[in-house]
Amino acid sequence: MTEIEIGRGKRGRRAYSFDDIAVVPSRRTRDPEEVSVSWQIDAYHFDLPVIAAPMDSVVSPETAIAFGRLGGLPVLDLEGLWTRYDDPTPLLAEIAALDPADATRRMQEIYAAPIRAELITERLGQIRDSGVTVAGALSPQRTQEFWKTVVDAGVDLFVIRGTTVSAEHVSSRSEPLNLKRFIYELDVPVIVGGAASYTAALHLMRTGAAGVLVGFGGGAAHTTRLTLGIHAPMASAIADVAAARRDYMDESGGRYVHVIADGGMGRSGEIIKAVACGADAVMLGAALARATEAPGRGYHWGSEAHHSLLPRGERVEVGALGSLEEILLGPGLGADGSTNLIGALKRAMATTGYSDVKEFQRVEVVVAPYQRS
Amino acid sequence: MTEIEIGRGKRGRRAYSFDDIAVVPSRRTRDPEEVSVSWQIDAYHFDLPVIAAPMDSVVSPETAIAFGRLGGLPVLDLEGLWTRYDDPTPLLAEIAALDPADATRRMQEIYAAPIRAELITERLGQIRDSGVTVAGALSPQRTQEFWKTVVDAGVDLFVIRGTTVSAEHVSSRSEPLNLKRFIYELDVPVIVGGAASYTAALHLMRTGAAGVLVGFGGGAAHTTRLTLGIHAPMASAIADVAAARRDYMDESGGRYVHVIADGGMGRSGEIIKAVACGADAVMLGAALARATEAPGRGYHWGSEAHHSLLPRGERVEVGALGSLEEILLGPGLGADGSTNLIGALKRAMATTGYSDVKEFQRVEVVVAPYQRS
Amino acid sequence: MTEIEIGRGKRGRRAYSFDDIAVVPSRRTRDPEEVSVSWQIDAYHFDLPVIAAPMDSVVSPETAIAFGRLGGLPVLDLEGLWTRYDDPTPLLAEIAALDPADATRRMQEIYAAPIRAELITERLGQIRDSGVTVAGALSPQRTQEFWKTVVDAGVDLFVIRGTTVSAEHVSSRSEPLNLKRFIYELDVPVIVGGAASYTAALHLMRTGAAGVLVGFGGGAAHTTRLTLGIHAPMASAIADVAAARRDYMDESGGRYVHVIADGGMGRSGEIIKAVACGADAVMLGAALARATEAPGRGYHWGSEAHHSLLPRGERVEVGALGSLEEILLGPGLGADGSTNLIGALKRAMATTGYSDVKEFQRVEVVVAPYQRS
Amino acid sequence: MTEIEIGRGKRGRRAYSFDDIAVVPSRRTRDPEEVSVSWQIDAYHFDLPVIAAPMDSVVSPETAIAFGRLGGLPVLDLEGLWTRYDDPTPLLAEIAALDPADATRRMQEIYAAPIRAELITERLGQIRDSGVTVAGALSPQRTQEFWKTVVDAGVDLFVIRGTTVSAEHVSSRSEPLNLKRFIYELDVPVIVGGAASYTAALHLMRTGAAGVLVGFGGGAAHTTRLTLGIHAPMASAIADVAAARRDYMDESGGRYVHVIADGGMGRSGEIIKAVACGADAVMLGAALARATEAPGRGYHWGSEAHHSLLPRGERVEVGALGSLEEILLGPGLGADGSTNLIGALKRAMATTGYSDVKEFQRVEVVVAPYQRS
Repeated sequence: MTEIEIGRGKRGRRAYSFDDIAVVPSRRTRDPEEVSVSWQIDAYHFDLPVIAAPMDSVVSPETAIAFGRLGGLPVLDLEGLWTRYDDPTPLLAEIAALDPADATRRMQEIYAAPIRAELITERLGQIRDSGVTVAGALSPQRTQEFWKTVVDAGVDLFVIRGTTVSAEHVSSRSEPLNLKRFIYELDVPVIVGGAASYTAALHLMRTGAAGVLVGFGGGAAHTTRLTLGIHAPMASAIADVAAARRDYMDESGGRYVHVIADGGMGRSGEIIKAVACGADAVMLGAALARATEAPGRGYHWGSEAHHSLLPRGERVEVGALGSLEEILLGPGLGADGSTNLIGALKRAMATTGYSDVKEFQRVEVVVAPYQRS
Repeated sequence: MTEIEIGRGKRGRRAYSFDDIAVVPSRRTRDPEEVSVSWQIDAYHFDLPVIAAPMDSVVSPETAIAFGRLGGLPVLDLEGLWTRYDDPTPLLAEIAALDPADATRRMQEIYAAPIRAELITERLGQIRDSGVTVAGALSPQRTQEFWKTVVDAGVDLFVIRGTTVSAEHVSSRSEPLNLKRFIYELDVPVIVGGAASYTAALHLMRTGAAGVLVGFGGGAAHTTRLTLGIHAPMASAIADVAAARRDYMDESGGRYVHVIADGGMGRSGEIIKAVACGADAVMLGAALARATEAPGRGYHWGSEAHHSLLPRGERVEVGALGSLEEILLGPGLGADGSTNLIGALKRAMATTGYSDVKEFQRVEVVVAPYQRS
Repeated sequence: MTEIEIGRGKRGRRAYSFDDIAVVPSRRTRDPEEVSVSWQIDAYHFDLPVIAAPMDSVVSPETAIAFGRLGGLPVLDLEGLWTRYDDPTPLLAEIAALDPADATRRMQEIYAAPIRAELITERLGQIRDSGVTVAGALSPQRTQEFWKTVVDAGVDLFVIRGTTVSAEHVSSRSEPLNLKRFIYELDVPVIVGGAASYTAALHLMRTGAAGVLVGFGGGAAHTTRLTLGIHAPMASAIADVAAARRDYMDESGGRYVHVIADGGMGRSGEIIKAVACGADAVMLGAALARATEAPGRGYHWGSEAHHSLLPRGERVEVGALGSLEEILLGPGLGADGSTNLIGALKRAMATTGYSDVKEFQRVEVVVAPYQRS
Repeated sequence: MTEIEIGRGKRGRRAYSFDDIAVVPSRRTRDPEEVSVSWQIDAYHFDLPVIAAPMDSVVSPETAIAFGRLGGLPVLDLEGLWTRYDDPTPLLAEIAALDPADATRRMQEIYAAPIRAELITERLGQIRDSGVTVAGALSPQRTQEFWKTVVDAGVDLFVIRGTTVSAEHVSSRSEPLNLKRFIYELDVPVIVGGAASYTAALHLMRTGAAGVLVGFGGGAAHTTRLTLGIHAPMASAIADVAAARRDYMDESGGRYVHVIADGGMGRSGEIIKAVACGADAVMLGAALARATEAPGRGYHWGSEAHHSLLPRGERVEVGALGSLEEILLGPGLGADGSTNLIGALKRAMATTGYSDVKEFQRVEVVVAPYQRS
C-alpha cells in the first residue's frame, strides 16, 4: 500500500479508479469464440457474469424474466415501486416525464407509499413461474421486517444491499440486524454489500455471505463525493476485496466468497477492468437502464435520489440505446462501449489470451490516468 | 512529508486539496440519529461546529442572531459596512445590483468610508441583546485601534482574521501588534488566523489563542493563486495544523487549541473532509451566503475584492438556494451538497461508524484526485 | 519499473503516454541542415523514417507511389477496398459523404464484399511498376489464405498487422498461423505487430521479424479504452520494446529488429517523442490522412470502425490541410504540428544536438504531464 | 532528482511547471512598504527586477524609454521591424489588423526585409539619448554579423537570445560563434540564453556571461510542445539553473551569474513563483504586450511565429488592459494577476516575511498541481 502523508497529522492511501488503469495486451492471443464468461455462485449457474441491479429503472418482474433468459441474474428491488403499488406502470411513466426541477420532490412523494408484504410474494412468484433464478433485495434497515416474506416467497438468492453495509452496526434505538446469525439461520445464500475496503469485506465474508457487493452509492458516486465527501475508487476497492477473498479462503479452509463489483461500470471497458481487478461478476445499473425495455424509459435513479432528508443522487437521463439483447450480446451499435458488453468482455479476454473470467483476474494492468479531453 | 525536488536548487512538499482526497467507509456503521456534532470552545457550547465568516455577504446583525439560534457561532465583520454606515442596507442592495464591470471600483468607493467606533458598540449590543454568543472580527492592522471598543461592547469571543496572520510581524513604521501580550492581557478568548502551516500555527498557539483559523485568502483561493502565486491546499494545511495542536498540547501541558478550517468549503463534502483532516469546526462563507436571508442577496465577496491597490478577489454570484435552516439542517433541496450541510456531516459520520466530531478526525481517507468532467 | 499497488490484490506498472513526456534541450546545438533522418530496413533505404499505414483513408495505389517518391515506405491494406472492388473510388467518395448516424452500418456493408486475390496482384503490380518499394499488409487471420498471392505479386516487405499480434495464438477451430515457421520459410522480410510490451515484442522478434509495430488499435485508442478497457500508453510501450530490441540483439548475436511506433502520432511533436523513446521509424495514419491527395477525402478510419459485431472506432473527420509534400516536408502551414513533420523532427534533433535518428533515441526527456486547457 | 522509468529502455526526470507549484505563507509577515524589489546586474541598477523582452509587440524605442523610466530594463530586438524599416509603424498597425488566416503568411513577408546596420545604430542611439540603460538583442546566428555595429552604437548590456543557445554549436557550413572568446573580448556585459537545464546553463556561465536566460521558445511553449515535442517546465528549469549559479560561483571563486526567467509568466503569480524558484529577474513578453502603449496594439508574437519553413507560434490577441504603469505598478484593475505585477510581488514577499528578491528565493513552496476548472 502506498501510504501518503496528506499533512503531518493525517495519512491516507493512494486509491485508483477505473479511469486510472487500463488492461494491457500480453504475449498470447486467443479466439474470442473460445472464451467462456459463465459464472456459478452456490448452486446457480449463469451464462453471463452479470447481475441486474435492484433498481426500479432497471428491473421490473418482466425485465427480470427477460434478463434471466439472456443468461444473467436479475435482482428485484423489494422496496421499490413494485412492492408499494399494485400497478406502478403509470408512476414509472410519470417519473420519466417529470420536469427536472420537480423530480426530486415528486419522487419523494411517490416512494413514501408503504411496502406491502403481499406484493413481495406476488412479484417474486411471477419471476419464479418463468423458471428464471429468483433474487430479491432488501436494505439492511428493512431486512428484519420482510425477510420471512421473501424467503417464504421462495427466493433462490437473497440480496442485502445498502450504500454501506457493515458486519457491525451500532444502534441504541433498535436491535440491529445481526448479519452473522441471520445468514447462518437462513437457508438461502446471501449476497451482501456494499463494502469498499479489505477489512469491511473480510468481516462480511465471516458472516457467511456467498457474495460481497463492492462499491458505495451505486450510480451516484459523483454526488456522493460532493455531498458526503465519501468515495471508494473502484479499482482499488475491488482489488482490496479480492485480497480479502483470498485471505478468507485460507482462514476458512476453502470457502470461496464471490466478489461482485457494484457501481461505476457504465461502459464495457469498466466491466472488463472490474474483472481485471478481481471481480467474479458485476452488478449493472445505468448500463442496463439504457435498454429499450428498461422500466426507467430512458431514465435511471437509485434510492438515494428520493431520500426524504438528504437526497444524494438525481434522476439521470441515460437514453434508450438498443434492446437488452443488443446491450448485452450485440451486435454493437456504436463505438462507445455501451452495447455488446459481453462481446467486448470476450474480445478483451481473447486479445490478452485468457479463457475464463477467473483466469482473466490475473491479466496485467497499467496505471495510466485517463485524460478526458 | 513527501519532499519533492522541483529542480536541483529547490525542493517542496507535495500538498493536497480537498479535491485530492475522500473519506472511505470502514467496517462499522451507525445510526445517523446517534451522532453528535456539538462543539465547545472555552466556555461556549454550540450545537453545530460551524462559524459564520465575518463577511458582509454572510453576517449582518440580523443573520448573526438567526444563525446563533440555529446552533452556530456567527462572527460580525467589524470593518465591514455595518460599522461604517448607519444603515448599510441600501448599499448591500446596490452591490448586489452592480454591473460586473463596475463592481470592483464601486466597492472600493463604498468601503472607503471610515469605521465608526460607536457603530461597533451598537452592532455588537444588538447581537448581545438577542442572547446569542457575541463574536466580532478585526484585521490585525485595526486591532490596536479598535480592540478596546470591541471588548467594552462585551464580546464573548474575539476574532483576529487576515489573509495571513503571523505571531511575528515585522514593521518599522509602527509598533506591530504583539499578539502574545495582547491575548494575555485580554480577558476574552481569541480566535486568530489564517495560518496555513505547522510552524505558523504552532507560533499562533503559543500566543495563547483559543482557536486558530486554517486557510489563506478566504474564498478567493483561485485568484490569490493567480495574483500572488500563493496557495495553501486545505487538506494538507488542516492536517499540519492538527499536528501542531497535538504537539502544542504536549508542550503546554494540556492546552487544547481549536483548529478551525477557514475557506474552500462550499459543499458539505468539503466540510466533512475538513473534519476528517483534523478540524474541530469550520468557518463558512460562500456556503452560507447562499441562504435567502443572507445580506449578500445572492452575491458573495471578501475584503480582498475591494482592496484599493491590489484587488485579489471578485464579487461572485452564488445564488439564493434556500433558507439558512435548509442550508444548515435540511431537508436537502438537491444533490449537490449545498443544502443540509449538517445532515450530510451526520450521515458521513454514521456511515463510517463515528459518533462525535473529535472521533471522526480519525476516519480513514484516501488520496484519489477528483477529475472534474 | 514503478510497480504500484492498485489494491491489496492487484499491482500494475505506471505507464506513460506521449502527453506525459517532453524532450528537453541539452548543452549542445546543431544546424538543422546537418541532420539526417534516413532509415534503412533490410536491403531497403528510405530518406524518411515514415511508413504510411495500411488504411484505406491513407494509402491507395496512387498515393503509395507519391508517398514512396517523397522518401517514405507506403503499405497498402490488402484487405481494404482496393482488393475488394475493381474501382473503389465511388465508394471512398460515398464514405466521405455519409451521415455520421449511418456511417458505421454502411461501412459494415461496403466492407462485407469478398477479397479477390487477382486484385491483390494487380494493385501491388501497379506500385511495383512505379519503382517504389512495394509493401502490403494482411491481418494474421487472412495471412494463410493470401500470403502466397502477395509474395507472388512481388512485395519487397510483408506486413502482418492486427490490433494485437502475438507469437502464440491459441485456437482450437483452425490451425493458427505459426509465425516463426511462416517467417522462416518466407523469402521476404516481415514487419509484424502491434505489440505493446517487452515480452510480447521479444517473442515477435524471436520469430525472425525484421520489424515490430508498437501500439494497439491504430487510431482508435480512445474508443478502445472505452470499449475494451485496453490501453497501451505509447511512450512506455516504445521504451519497453526498445529494451526488447537491445536484449534480443544480445541474445541473437547481433540481429537488429526495427522498432516502429504505430499509433497516437497525429502531430510532429509525437513523432519526435516516439523516436526519443526508441523508435527507428513511425507508421502514420491520421497525420497522412490530412493530405489533400489522401483517399479518405478528409476522413480517416480503421478496420475496427466497420467490425461487424463490435465496432470500436469511428470514421473521423480530419480535414484536408495541405499537400502530402507540405505535410511531410513543409513549408509548414500553421503552428499546430500537422504540417512539415520532417522539418520539425530535424529541428528538434538540431536543437538538442543530435545528427541521426538512432542517436536521437538517447535524447533526454522529462515527465511533465500536459494539461489540455 | 526523481528519475522515472518511462519504460525499460528509457528514463526521464519528473519536471514541474509554474502551475504545479505554489508559494506558502510562513510564520512571519512584513509590511509590503518595507519590501525592496530592486535589482543590480554588473554596474547597472534597476528599481524593478523586470526586463522587457526583445519582441516587436513589446519593445519599440519609445516604449523602451518609458519602460526604463519606470525602473525596468528594456531590450530592443535588433532583428525586428525597427532595424528593417525606416518607419515600421504602419506595418505594426497592419499586423494588428490581419485576418488570423493570413497572419502567418503576411508576417513571413514583412519580416523578409533585410536588417540594416544603420538602423541598429539609430534606434540604440535614440534610447541612449533618453538616459535609459541601453540593451539590444541579437540571435546567435546574427551575432557575428552585427555585434560590432551594436557595440559601436554604445549598448550597456548585450543580449544574445535564441530558442536554445548552447555554449557548443556544431556546424560544418560556417564557423559557429565561439561564445567564450566573444564574451571575453567584448567590453560589454552579455546576457545569453535560453537554457533550460543545469548543464546547459553551467556551460553558458563558463563563457563569462553576466546573466543567463532560462526558458525555451519564449511565449510559444504550447505550440513548441505540439510541433517539436520539446518542453522545459519552468519551475524545474529555473531551480536547476539556480543550482548551476551556486555551483559556478563556487567553481569560479565568487562570480555571481544572474538567473533570468524568460517565458511563461503572463500573470503576477508566475513572476512570484519564478523568483521563488531562484530567479534574480524576469523577462516579460505577453504580460507587457497588454499595455495600451505596447507596439503590438493588443497583439503579441515572437520570431518563431514568422519562421519561413516551420512556424511554431502564432500572433496571439492579448488585449490592451491598461497603461504600462498600471501593469507594472498598479493600481490593479482586476483580480487576474495581469496588472500591478510589482505590487503583487511585494505583497507576496511581505505576506511570507521576506524583504528582498534574493531572500525570497528561499521561500517555501509546495507541489500542488493546479486544476483548471
